[in-house]
Amino acid sequence: MEGKEEDVRLGANRYRERQPIGTAAQTQDTKDYQEPPPAPLFEPGELSSWSFYRAGIAEFVATFLFLYITVLTVMGVVKSPTKCSTVGIQGIAWAFGGMIFALVYCTAGISGGHINPAVTFGLFLARKLSLTRAVFYIIMQCLGAICGAAVVKGFQKGQYERLGGGANTISSGYSKGSGLGAEIVGTFVLVYTVFSATDAKRNARDSHVPILAPLPIGFAVFLVHLATIPLTGTGINPARSLGAALIYNKEQAWDDHWIFWVGPFIGAALAALYHQIVIRAIPFKSK
Amino acid sequence: MEGKEEDVRLGANRYRERQPIGTAAQTQDTKDYQEPPPAPLFEPGELSSWSFYRAGIAEFVATFLFLYITVLTVMGVVKSPTKCSTVGIQGIAWAFGGMIFALVYCTAGISGGHINPAVTFGLFLARKLSLTRAVFYIIMQCLGAICGAAVVKGFQKGQYERLGGGANTISSGYSKGSGLGAEIVGTFVLVYTVFSATDAKRNARDSHVPILAPLPIGFAVFLVHLATIPLTGTGINPARSLGAALIYNKEQAWDDHWIFWVGPFIGAALAALYHQIVIRAIPFKSK
Amino acid sequence: MEGKEEDVRLGANRYRERQPIGTAAQTQDTKDYQEPPPAPLFEPGELSSWSFYRAGIAEFVATFLFLYITVLTVMGVVKSPTKCSTVGIQGIAWAFGGMIFALVYCTAGISGGHINPAVTFGLFLARKLSLTRAVFYIIMQCLGAICGAAVVKGFQKGQYERLGGGANTISSGYSKGSGLGAEIVGTFVLVYTVFSATDAKRNARDSHVPILAPLPIGFAVFLVHLATIPLTGTGINPARSLGAALIYNKEQAWDDHWIFWVGPFIGAALAALYHQIVIRAIPFKSK
Amino acid sequence: MEGKEEDVRLGANRYRERQPIGTAAQTQDTKDYQEPPPAPLFEPGELSSWSFYRAGIAEFVATFLFLYITVLTVMGVVKSPTKCSTVGIQGIAWAFGGMIFALVYCTAGISGGHINPAVTFGLFLARKLSLTRAVFYIIMQCLGAICGAAVVKGFQKGQYERLGGGANTISSGYSKGSGLGAEIVGTFVLVYTVFSATDAKRNARDSHVPILAPLPIGFAVFLVHLATIPLTGTGINPARSLGAALIYNKEQAWDDHWIFWVGPFIGAALAALYHQIVIRAIPFKSK
Repeated sequence: MEGKEEDVRLGANRYRERQPIGTAAQTQDTKDYQEPPPAPLFEPGELSSWSFYRAGIAEFVATFLFLYITVLTVMGVVKSPTKCSTVGIQGIAWAFGGMIFALVYCTAGISGGHINPAVTFGLFLARKLSLTRAVFYIIMQCLGAICGAAVVKGFQKGQYERLGGGANTISSGYSKGSGLGAEIVGTFVLVYTVFSATDAKRNARDSHVPILAPLPIGFAVFLVHLATIPLTGTGINPARSLGAALIYNKEQAWDDHWIFWVGPFIGAALAALYHQIVIRAIPFKSK
Repeated sequence: MEGKEEDVRLGANRYRERQPIGTAAQTQDTKDYQEPPPAPLFEPGELSSWSFYRAGIAEFVATFLFLYITVLTVMGVVKSPTKCSTVGIQGIAWAFGGMIFALVYCTAGISGGHINPAVTFGLFLARKLSLTRAVFYIIMQCLGAICGAAVVKGFQKGQYERLGGGANTISSGYSKGSGLGAEIVGTFVLVYTVFSATDAKRNARDSHVPILAPLPIGFAVFLVHLATIPLTGTGINPARSLGAALIYNKEQAWDDHWIFWVGPFIGAALAALYHQIVIRAIPFKSK
Repeated sequence: MEGKEEDVRLGANRYRERQPIGTAAQTQDTKDYQEPPPAPLFEPGELSSWSFYRAGIAEFVATFLFLYITVLTVMGVVKSPTKCSTVGIQGIAWAFGGMIFALVYCTAGISGGHINPAVTFGLFLARKLSLTRAVFYIIMQCLGAICGAAVVKGFQKGQYERLGGGANTISSGYSKGSGLGAEIVGTFVLVYTVFSATDAKRNARDSHVPILAPLPIGFAVFLVHLATIPLTGTGINPARSLGAALIYNKEQAWDDHWIFWVGPFIGAALAALYHQIVIRAIPFKSK
Repeated sequence: MEGKEEDVRLGANRYRERQPIGTAAQTQDTKDYQEPPPAPLFEPGELSSWSFYRAGIAEFVATFLFLYITVLTVMGVVKSPTKCSTVGIQGIAWAFGGMIFALVYCTAGISGGHINPAVTFGLFLARKLSLTRAVFYIIMQCLGAICGAAVVKGFQKGQYERLGGGANTISSGYSKGSGLGAEIVGTFVLVYTVFSATDAKRNARDSHVPILAPLPIGFAVFLVHLATIPLTGTGINPARSLGAALIYNKEQAWDDHWIFWVGPFIGAALAALYHQIVIRAIPFKSK
């Protein structure tokens, strides 16, 4: 009965876990939950299952739509001489966050709704999916992102190239270190929210956790964009950065490109560590 | 026990469908659900049922309120010399998306909450409603849209005609092909979200799906507006385009009008195909 | 077993109510619900119940906070020479809609969360509360609104008087008829949403209805503000209009003041009619 | 059976508590709930429990992320000569409110999700947590806030110091009394929402209360920022004010600093009084 076990004991801890206020209805801490077993590294059976390929297709389509809507929104804002007659920088942040909300809502039950290699990487580290599946997802996400940005470029090629194509770069006035730091903390915010939203224990005990789930995940993306668009244009999603860079394909898009892979992967790893070690203390659980 | 059947098998697929992370509480994949039978093309009994006419009235009122609020918001923005002293283009996107959220919330239980011929068409293709009902809904939606735009024109006739009346046109600098493409992908985003929100299987398994439903549908409309207002003003709803065009009734409103019927209907058909064939694999299910 | 009765029959209506798509999980239409009996006009017992006075206090406090936050937001926007360096007109719309969301959430279980004489009036017409309670609520709402506006004026008296104090007036270029029409339709949107959110039948059948309820009600207020701030500043709440007018207390605030009582009350009455007669067909139900 | 007791009687109150409309599905007032017993002032066992320290770490991390995202957003807005090319003042309000929404969602089940000494203080007054825990939380919140602001300063030291570092001060044109008043009422709005969201009785009776909970709490913060950024920059969170002031560390940040502790603590105390005495009448309950 895993759900009823006590949390890690520290000295003479005779007291059950208490939430002093909680916005949560958590008075009975005894509801059961089932921690899913860690996913194997390789699950050969997956490769002959339709649901595996369907999940990959869903990740492709979702990342395609994500880049299409967001890069098109960026183009609409940057091409206008005065931002006042556009949806503005805040509108860009809504496009990124809102799309993640809608797409996680739609694909959560099909593929888990990652739409982001950093999310896939963080969840892989926590052994929530196999290595095979993680690699397959990341490839499909990158392909989807490239196609999404390509469609936007197809609408107005000259403008796209003149205006930067939504590619991520470090803004002048900021060091590479600041940019990397911003990507790390930003991705931490996102992946920490994903872990909180998908935790089996919290899902069982707090009624708001499973039901609202796609909303705070979308908001996390929105909020990081509010804060870091002036620094880096905000990556926190290597597929998004790769798709925009590859279709734009000018030197300045590639100069700092490594930051938008290394930063998100470090941030995702830290979030996985924080959630699994500090919040859930999974390695210390008595078997 | 339809809800327990395996998904389409592909080779030696002995493995049950798994969501590697899911924002969904989907540990037990065994909850039953009931796929509703396909609606007949003609259901003569409908025509003598009060709930059929009531649903049509609800679609009329909802589309009336939708055009009233959105076109009035558009007028308030375009008539000001500086967008800064208005709710801005982002405010227009909120008006469209927010109204769909509120109206789907209010009418879902009465008519299904379509408020859009493209949604009705997509759901008809998936055999979720009869042809009779689909045609009746589309007529009521168009009538509602015309009346809604007419009330706004009544408030300030001269201004309405001078400022374009919220009618959809292809912006200068974009080809008809781009406009058509934008309408197709935009409507795909909306109708795909509607299918995800109303899927019987997902409703049974993911607790967030039925409860949040009107919110991602509204957000889908909001997001497409963020991206494509600079291209076409954003249609993705033929009733909205027709209502605004008919009340504005100048040549430039009619020139590209076919795009705002053909685009949304193609997008809705693609979304129906994607959901029914790829995601649900309904034609391949063992009977 | 009221919840299982058929809806009003029309001729040979042998067919049960169907939702062709529904964003709703409504496959079994058989869940019971209990239509509450109509409230008596006078319920003398109420007057000696603590919960009656507590509900009045809650309405007072909620309307006080509503006017305080919204009028302060309006002042912050109008006092700036350039709207760009403020939260903007859209921010004003968020303040009104967001406060209604938060306050309905907080007070729904205490007083029903009206915070608006038009809502109280509409619900009284549908016999959801007694006349005694309706009059008591409206008085408390008006007192709360006056106090809320007074605190804002206390912060900066001169500015408040110079800048209009958030009072509702018909903008130049619009006729009194347009302003009245805008108030009627706007209040219809709000009160129709309230009726949809609180309908016993919908609450029992659609899981999203009771849980999301405060959100679409808040959005309705937000949306009407997006559309009609340029016409009238948006009333749709006579207590809000009275509070601002009384504390501002200059002639132009009183000239059109009747519109902000007559319009909302007509709109609320139409919404009550629409919901009770068309949607629920309550007068025609077989007893 | 505490949940079934009548509310405080006033005279011959034979009538059960009724919600005349309620956005709440509250027809059966008989569902049980369990009022948790008041927390002891000192609970020595807590200090040897891992969940106590984990809760403190969660408060530290949440307040760190809160200051990081919000102060970075503020910097991005203030450093631009024209607010139009930033996320704007409204974007700042979204950053504060949105972060509270996401962080309360994530940490509610771990620490209760306070992220604010005023919230901790209000809940302590209502005896929802021990004094030991309250003091520990407040220390961790302040440390987290200092670190969050420090990281932002690290990104661009010169700019941070030139632009005020997001520290709270009373804007010119407003008296200290107005600033104090704005902090009191603003914190009242927030802490009143927290009490409503976490009330055991409301949680048991209104299905929207526990599920939406983090959303109205986040919106309360957003709304207070919309209204009072022009007055004080909006504190309503002493940890946020302390972190920004200490890292900025110039005289003008310290001049009015007491207001951002005294105001929030008075507001939180008033909200605790209002909820416990007026709404729940807890001191008058028959034992």
